[in-house]
Amino acid sequence: MQIGVVGLGRMGANIVRRLTRAGHSCVVFDADAATTAKLAAEGAEGASSLADLCGKLAAPRTVWVMLPAGQVTETAIAAIAGHLAAGDTVIDGGNTFWKDDIRRSKALAERGLTYLDVGTSGGVWGLERGYCLMIGGDKATVERLDPIFRALAPGRGDIPETRHREGRASTAEEGYLHCGPSGAGHYVKMIHNGIEYGMMQAFAEGFDILRNAASPRLSEEERLTLDVAEVAEVWRRGSVVTSWLLDLTAEALAKDPALAEFSGHVSDSGEGRWTVEAAIEQATPAEVLTSALYTRFRSRQDHTFAEKVLSAMRKGFGGHQESK
Amino acid sequence: MQIGVVGLGRMGANIVRRLTRAGHSCVVFDADAATTAKLAAEGAEGASSLADLCGKLAAPRTVWVMLPAGQVTETAIAAIAGHLAAGDTVIDGGNTFWKDDIRRSKALAERGLTYLDVGTSGGVWGLERGYCLMIGGDKATVERLDPIFRALAPGRGDIPETRHREGRASTAEEGYLHCGPSGAGHYVKMIHNGIEYGMMQAFAEGFDILRNAASPRLSEEERLTLDVAEVAEVWRRGSVVTSWLLDLTAEALAKDPALAEFSGHVSDSGEGRWTVEAAIEQATPAEVLTSALYTRFRSRQDHTFAEKVLSAMRKGFGGHQESK
Amino acid sequence: MQIGVVGLGRMGANIVRRLTRAGHSCVVFDADAATTAKLAAEGAEGASSLADLCGKLAAPRTVWVMLPAGQVTETAIAAIAGHLAAGDTVIDGGNTFWKDDIRRSKALAERGLTYLDVGTSGGVWGLERGYCLMIGGDKATVERLDPIFRALAPGRGDIPETRHREGRASTAEEGYLHCGPSGAGHYVKMIHNGIEYGMMQAFAEGFDILRNAASPRLSEEERLTLDVAEVAEVWRRGSVVTSWLLDLTAEALAKDPALAEFSGHVSDSGEGRWTVEAAIEQATPAEVLTSALYTRFRSRQDHTFAEKVLSAMRKGFGGHQESK
Amino acid sequence: MQIGVVGLGRMGANIVRRLTRAGHSCVVFDADAATTAKLAAEGAEGASSLADLCGKLAAPRTVWVMLPAGQVTETAIAAIAGHLAAGDTVIDGGNTFWKDDIRRSKALAERGLTYLDVGTSGGVWGLERGYCLMIGGDKATVERLDPIFRALAPGRGDIPETRHREGRASTAEEGYLHCGPSGAGHYVKMIHNGIEYGMMQAFAEGFDILRNAASPRLSEEERLTLDVAEVAEVWRRGSVVTSWLLDLTAEALAKDPALAEFSGHVSDSGEGRWTVEAAIEQATPAEVLTSALYTRFRSRQDHTFAEKVLSAMRKGFGGHQESK
Repeated sequence: MQIGVVGLGRMGANIVRRLTRAGHSCVVFDADAATTAKLAAEGAEGASSLADLCGKLAAPRTVWVMLPAGQVTETAIAAIAGHLAAGDTVIDGGNTFWKDDIRRSKALAERGLTYLDVGTSGGVWGLERGYCLMIGGDKATVERLDPIFRALAPGRGDIPETRHREGRASTAEEGYLHCGPSGAGHYVKMIHNGIEYGMMQAFAEGFDILRNAASPRLSEEERLTLDVAEVAEVWRRGSVVTSWLLDLTAEALAKDPALAEFSGHVSDSGEGRWTVEAAIEQATPAEVLTSALYTRFRSRQDHTFAEKVLSAMRKGFGGHQESK
Repeated sequence: MQIGVVGLGRMGANIVRRLTRAGHSCVVFDADAATTAKLAAEGAEGASSLADLCGKLAAPRTVWVMLPAGQVTETAIAAIAGHLAAGDTVIDGGNTFWKDDIRRSKALAERGLTYLDVGTSGGVWGLERGYCLMIGGDKATVERLDPIFRALAPGRGDIPETRHREGRASTAEEGYLHCGPSGAGHYVKMIHNGIEYGMMQAFAEGFDILRNAASPRLSEEERLTLDVAEVAEVWRRGSVVTSWLLDLTAEALAKDPALAEFSGHVSDSGEGRWTVEAAIEQATPAEVLTSALYTRFRSRQDHTFAEKVLSAMRKGFGGHQESK
Repeated sequence: MQIGVVGLGRMGANIVRRLTRAGHSCVVFDADAATTAKLAAEGAEGASSLADLCGKLAAPRTVWVMLPAGQVTETAIAAIAGHLAAGDTVIDGGNTFWKDDIRRSKALAERGLTYLDVGTSGGVWGLERGYCLMIGGDKATVERLDPIFRALAPGRGDIPETRHREGRASTAEEGYLHCGPSGAGHYVKMIHNGIEYGMMQAFAEGFDILRNAASPRLSEEERLTLDVAEVAEVWRRGSVVTSWLLDLTAEALAKDPALAEFSGHVSDSGEGRWTVEAAIEQATPAEVLTSALYTRFRSRQDHTFAEKVLSAMRKGFGGHQESK
Repeated sequence: MQIGVVGLGRMGANIVRRLTRAGHSCVVFDADAATTAKLAAEGAEGASSLADLCGKLAAPRTVWVMLPAGQVTETAIAAIAGHLAAGDTVIDGGNTFWKDDIRRSKALAERGLTYLDVGTSGGVWGLERGYCLMIGGDKATVERLDPIFRALAPGRGDIPETRHREGRASTAEEGYLHCGPSGAGHYVKMIHNGIEYGMMQAFAEGFDILRNAASPRLSEEERLTLDVAEVAEVWRRGSVVTSWLLDLTAEALAKDPALAEFSGHVSDSGEGRWTVEAAIEQATPAEVLTSALYTRFRSRQDHTFAEKVLSAMRKGFGGHQESK
């Protein structure tokens, strides 16, 4: 199948490669001409502009946009739509806010264009491991583009079948899913990332406590020196916490149990925030997902003003001076 | 190798079976004679009392105690120790509080007995999948009993090797680990369970938000009906949250996406509490692990007194009547 | 001074009364004619419609809107504005979302109207105690309406002066404050309510623990039966937690230490949610304010789906059946 | 009445002064002779040792110990008890763990001595404002020492009476309370401090958000510059959050709205930790009190190991480099 891909960063480039390997033909464009050229050299057809890219596609055209969420994506999609015609499809494979998908989808529908939102998980491993795809939008279009999704997804692999799924005809077992109408794909991806934050924080706190088991704050006879790298490794087999995140943690700790290359300044991408906002709109308590987000906020500051307020109060009522 | 096993519940019985299959010879005892007889019928040697069990073992004797943590285990170990002699070993494979291990280990050492604490993860799946074993206590004894641990552990299986582990000679890759001195095994198991609580809660909140995306509280155009069973399945391949807990969730949701057989009354076993206490003793913040615990506390009450206090205050300052 | 007041619920009616007592003259309107008549009987000038109300005011007109936040207020303000002319002022004294204030203020400014947002705290006690007013909008207008705000505010009373405030000429000591441009008044009120939620929850949890000190879950020798009403009272003098919320709690507990008239179904008004959203937009960690909100969400459900997911997982890996 | 006071730090010295002013006669001792001499110069009777102090008291003797909780207090009480006889009383006015009170009380009772645990709130303001006293132990002894407690407590002052307390004959209105048997005084004080942590954190987060309303992270049109000192002041009258902690915050912010003298390194005293442990033992959820504690833990570290683990995972699955 033929498809256009706009945005050839780490994710976009690997999507092109995985599609190409599967026999699909990609027309590609990146704002950086050298990047376009690089992918062209690997077998894709390079385009010199969005117009050029759209021109090189046969109707019905499909353009996969793989750009940073926000204004960049917004602008690119508007521009691409200007070069498309009724019956064509735009896919947003980035981390877009799901309500923007609903809005865009309606706007494009007025001009006869179809819009799909595709939450794409897999990071730097996707080329090799395949991408888990969470798709929102028009059902017929999703079905038409099935070969594309199938090529990108991991496939069944050697992952055992889930019991009780007899009779459920679904692509979920292949690693891609039509989740629902516009917005549903990015909604599911958003929750995926929210859960990811929570799981990461659970491991992070657990390893923090393990490491601090040797803290000099503790009495000598209750102090334990534990090898966090070995612990991570042993949990990889037979324990309840086996997971890909544990595998990655085990690898990082095997490289350096002190993780000295990291300072602990942790970014957040927006999806964690949207997850909390979605929870609040529904009045769903989400303690763990929210705490995981706040920990990241806190990690990026030396001190909060809140902490200064605490110290000021303690001085006020108890005459306490800050130690250190 | 010969080993005594005391306590033939779900875990103890399967430990005997897995050891027997691996060619070890087990002398077994349970307070319920019928249970002892059942395991004897499967190839173990039954004992009629703790004294009888100890008498049937050749020195140096090893007795694996697999009983509910707390007084039951405490009493059993004291009784068993009375039938053992210098050079013999008692293993506590239950979920004992790690400070109790340190105390017991010292007490038994005075009589020449060795005590190992073995955190055992694997639940009902251990017989088939193997048990992840986290071991604390005397190094020489752990090495002597290596065949036992190796037989119980999952082994390498088809789990890929962790990068950067070159040169680390360790049993961790087999799924068992000597974590450190007495208490270290149950300490690591305790943290394992703490992390487990946090991961579970992360998934639980995420699926709660997914389900509530169709809440009538939301405006109709922002409402999404999502198939939680399909979402759980699609995440099993290629996503960042792939894990055994996700596999189990996918199975439960495939069986019934409404989980109607469950009320939502969630127990906690003690390990989650000890994890939080350990964090507090070290002054390690553990927001997520703690929230996961509190959610369980809350799940077991209709309402808290705290909630009544809130309602009383709201009536006090604003004249607000409770709705519903 | 003359002022129109629209919306004569608990808050609106008392505002009219407090203004009238201070010698101001109020023209009043409520959708319920009987309510309008009641206030008219107490000395206000009744109006039969928004048009009538605006017609009875001399330019420059000021209309204080005291309606439930949301669509009701939105619609009323639009209607009122249609009856006003350049130089007139609309005050929104309700709990409006601060970004709506910014939007409305701009829209009204295009027609020469001034818009003030006034966060109003005081609840059912305001008539007697005065209202704490947090005001956003045009400085000159705020100054012109100073007699109104001064009449509504509590005044200095017998509250001791704050040290270090020498040289700060401000109405803050009188209990009203021009906080900044449009939106600033409701922003400050929003944070006030966020803090209120957090303080309430701190007391609620504390009294919950006090009450559960007699829990049969505890060993008999560590069980304490405490009189929560007496404890609340003793803290009212000399302790660090003295506060109006404690006074109200002491009163409620004196009436009935079991708070049996309350079920524990706790509403939230929107301000707590907006506070959390504001925190997230700024990347400010707000653990306590958020937990206080989530507790209320949880209080309104028998069980969450999250809790069922936890039970399902526990059954999955450990064969655990739900108790109860 | 005559009383011995051991430990003349900030709290102990002011207790002596307040008792002396009320006409009681104090025999005082501090490990630092100069400190003893200072109080002696102010009208107390100095003692040169614990033995000397006990010798100067007439039977039945009462010794108030005001030392840092922990080993110092433990040792002092044991030593003092050695100089006392049946019928005498030891009071621990420090921040002792309530289970230690139960233990000590039993031990002293075997020798005919009475032990009272008195949680003492008031900090540096107690001399002037009076101390809120939460008392545990033998009822008859508490009644005998009523003049002492009455002198130290704030008294009714101008704090309005609580409705619904008709018929409750109690010293709670005077600011002191016999809470229950041994341990009850410190238990109530512990919860008081737990609540204090939660309230402080609620204010701290609220002011943090107020200050960050001007954050450059926000779009220019949604940015608000708010004067936190004025906001704190305006809330002191008529708002729901009026409280002594707000008064202290208003004072600190009036002095310097940036709180530049503070770094934000916040200590915790032990009572917050015990509160959380008490909650966990009872299975009472205590989200807010716990988060308030963890915030302090976090404030004392540059980064946690947990944060490094997060960064390591993010690099592992997404190739993300830490920014900054």
